[in-house]
Amino acid sequence: MKISCQKTALLNGINIVFKAVSSKSTMPIMQCILIEASYQEIRFLANDIELGIETIVEGTIIEPGKIALEAKMFSDIVRKLPDSEVLIETNSACQTNIRCERSKFNIPGLSGEDFNYLPDIEKQKSIILSQFSLREVIRQTIFSISDQENARMMNGELFEVRGNHLRVVSLDGHRISIRNLQLKESYDSMKVIVPGKALNEVSKILSGGPEDEVRIYVTDKHILFEFEQTKVVSRLIDGDFYKIDQMLTGDYETKFEINKKELLNCIDRASLFIKESDKKPIIMQIENSNIYMRIDSSMGSMNEEIEISKEGKDLRIGFNPRFLMDVLRVIDDDTVSIYMINSKSPCYIRDEENTYVYLILPISIAA
Amino acid sequence: MKISCQKTALLNGINIVFKAVSSKSTMPIMQCILIEASYQEIRFLANDIELGIETIVEGTIIEPGKIALEAKMFSDIVRKLPDSEVLIETNSACQTNIRCERSKFNIPGLSGEDFNYLPDIEKQKSIILSQFSLREVIRQTIFSISDQENARMMNGELFEVRGNHLRVVSLDGHRISIRNLQLKESYDSMKVIVPGKALNEVSKILSGGPEDEVRIYVTDKHILFEFEQTKVVSRLIDGDFYKIDQMLTGDYETKFEINKKELLNCIDRASLFIKESDKKPIIMQIENSNIYMRIDSSMGSMNEEIEISKEGKDLRIGFNPRFLMDVLRVIDDDTVSIYMINSKSPCYIRDEENTYVYLILPISIAA
Repeated sequence: MKISCQKTALLNGINIVFKAVSSKSTMPIMQCILIEASYQEIRFLANDIELGIETIVEGTIIEPGKIALEAKMFSDIVRKLPDSEVLIETNSACQTNIRCERSKFNIPGLSGEDFNYLPDIEKQKSIILSQFSLREVIRQTIFSISDQENARMMNGELFEVRGNHLRVVSLDGHRISIRNLQLKESYDSMKVIVPGKALNEVSKILSGGPEDEVRIYVTDKHILFEFEQTKVVSRLIDGDFYKIDQMLTGDYETKFEINKKELLNCIDRASLFIKESDKKPIIMQIENSNIYMRIDSSMGSMNEEIEISKEGKDLRIGFNPRFLMDVLRVIDDDTVSIYMINSKSPCYIRDEENTYVYLILPISIAA
Repeated sequence: MKISCQKTALLNGINIVFKAVSSKSTMPIMQCILIEASYQEIRFLANDIELGIETIVEGTIIEPGKIALEAKMFSDIVRKLPDSEVLIETNSACQTNIRCERSKFNIPGLSGEDFNYLPDIEKQKSIILSQFSLREVIRQTIFSISDQENARMMNGELFEVRGNHLRVVSLDGHRISIRNLQLKESYDSMKVIVPGKALNEVSKILSGGPEDEVRIYVTDKHILFEFEQTKVVSRLIDGDFYKIDQMLTGDYETKFEINKKELLNCIDRASLFIKESDKKPIIMQIENSNIYMRIDSSMGSMNEEIEISKEGKDLRIGFNPRFLMDVLRVIDDDTVSIYMINSKSPCYIRDEENTYVYLILPISIAA
């Protein structure tokens, strides 16, 4: 194999596929990026079985072929090269020569014979949405997946399509995050659980805006995200997702609107006195047109009031401050509406159109 | 005590003195910032015995007094306050009330009776230089102090004044860094060893430019840096500094000029194949008007050549690549001059005027 690429194109390709290089495997081939120069294009691939990424790198194929290079070393070398043309050439023993201006590197490679290619995804119907929307939908829900290994289903997000409607759901047993999105077209119904890791990586690679598309293909076992010159394939999580509809209610006893930034900053200040390990709640006293926040701890105390516009009953309720902050941080609106029933029932943060719905369980407090 | 300050002024004061808060001590008072409101000014102080910092914070004294507050909590609270006026009020039990807009914090404080004040420095003659120069001089030498605790003298830098000349020296047994600086006035001779920690912190706090002064006072045991509203006092390191003059020679067998950035980037690339633990040298083959760099390791090999403008003999010599990079990173010149004698003698990197002189010992290599 002999190819020539610009350093920036190479580095970009490496950065994209690097996210699927296995950090845990002890098998050398799993720690490699495969370079495949054939069919008029140069492809970079990495695959840790759970997640596989391939992308096309612009360049000239002087001699077709393929080589697997240890990803970390390959990435480090390219990063440190001058911003110029880079020639990559392999010999029959898989020794790889990387040249750029007057720098010459020689590193050992692997033939790539035992490389795990990305699974073949039958490309029937794709679901199309904008890169911007997918990135936003992930950002606004990913924080409430669980990282507990014994709750496999909570390690991923539900992607559910019905007609022209996409619903993305994540939950961790204490809270549920839901984003609803209108699609341009209608599709057959679909319901899959996508691992959080894949979604995290996809959202990092997606650089396009509202005009740039991403196509999503789904099979029994896999999901494929295709955009620009890049394909990301992830295994799906097996099983039926939690039935959340019965947990969602439109009823409330107390509703108030509050300045999002004021509430977020107030909780942030209050949480100075709460150690994560304490599991101490922040207590909100909702009274007339104010919320009174109060924290008492051995480290000190804090209280603050915020004006609200309220309908319904007064209420005293306690929450894990981090759960509230996680939600408030991802909402773009200046004002948020919060719905509550009583001090033991979940609270809802949602907009009028149900574009987003966040459910948070309270922590029971002494009366 | 009752004072009122703007949040930004408070935070700035905290950030300055925080560097002298003890991170190791288990004595509560050592982990505090002392606020002292008296004599028409609000002073913040911190002192971990090795290093003490005090600074004046702008604000209004409503009731004079003092209080010692746990530095981390005080800093966290102020950082999270709205950008507005902050009222700090203490009661006779040292409970401290911090108010800003509608936030109210209560934290316990200490009376500050057992606070270690900064030592009194008799202010006789001060040495004056610009904040910019002091910051630069520290930056260009501090990297070659030793962090080995059993070499106390190498944990600091020599500050030596003779007439209108300041020399700053650091060394770690493998290399010596020297910066020479012309002062505006002449002073009595002086020679002290200043701990690296103090210099590091001073250079972080110094924000002024070439027009802003810093005044340096020295006693038997202490050095005081005074600038703007801030005083930094450090203990000195006891003892006579190494006699380095006999190690410095003007003789050389090989001299070459080289593009600093090309050399730095080349060594940086080559060092990819050198693990710090290996202590493998990077080998420079100086031949005619080129340097040939070559690295061979189990991970791969690299070679590169760089054009130089040379006087004297050809030479093959090996170095710890980090030592060369440390020096090249702090030199502002585009072209550097390197002087060598043979493969076993130190090499010198210096400019014509000896503004900077860097000595690096080579690593012996097989012939």
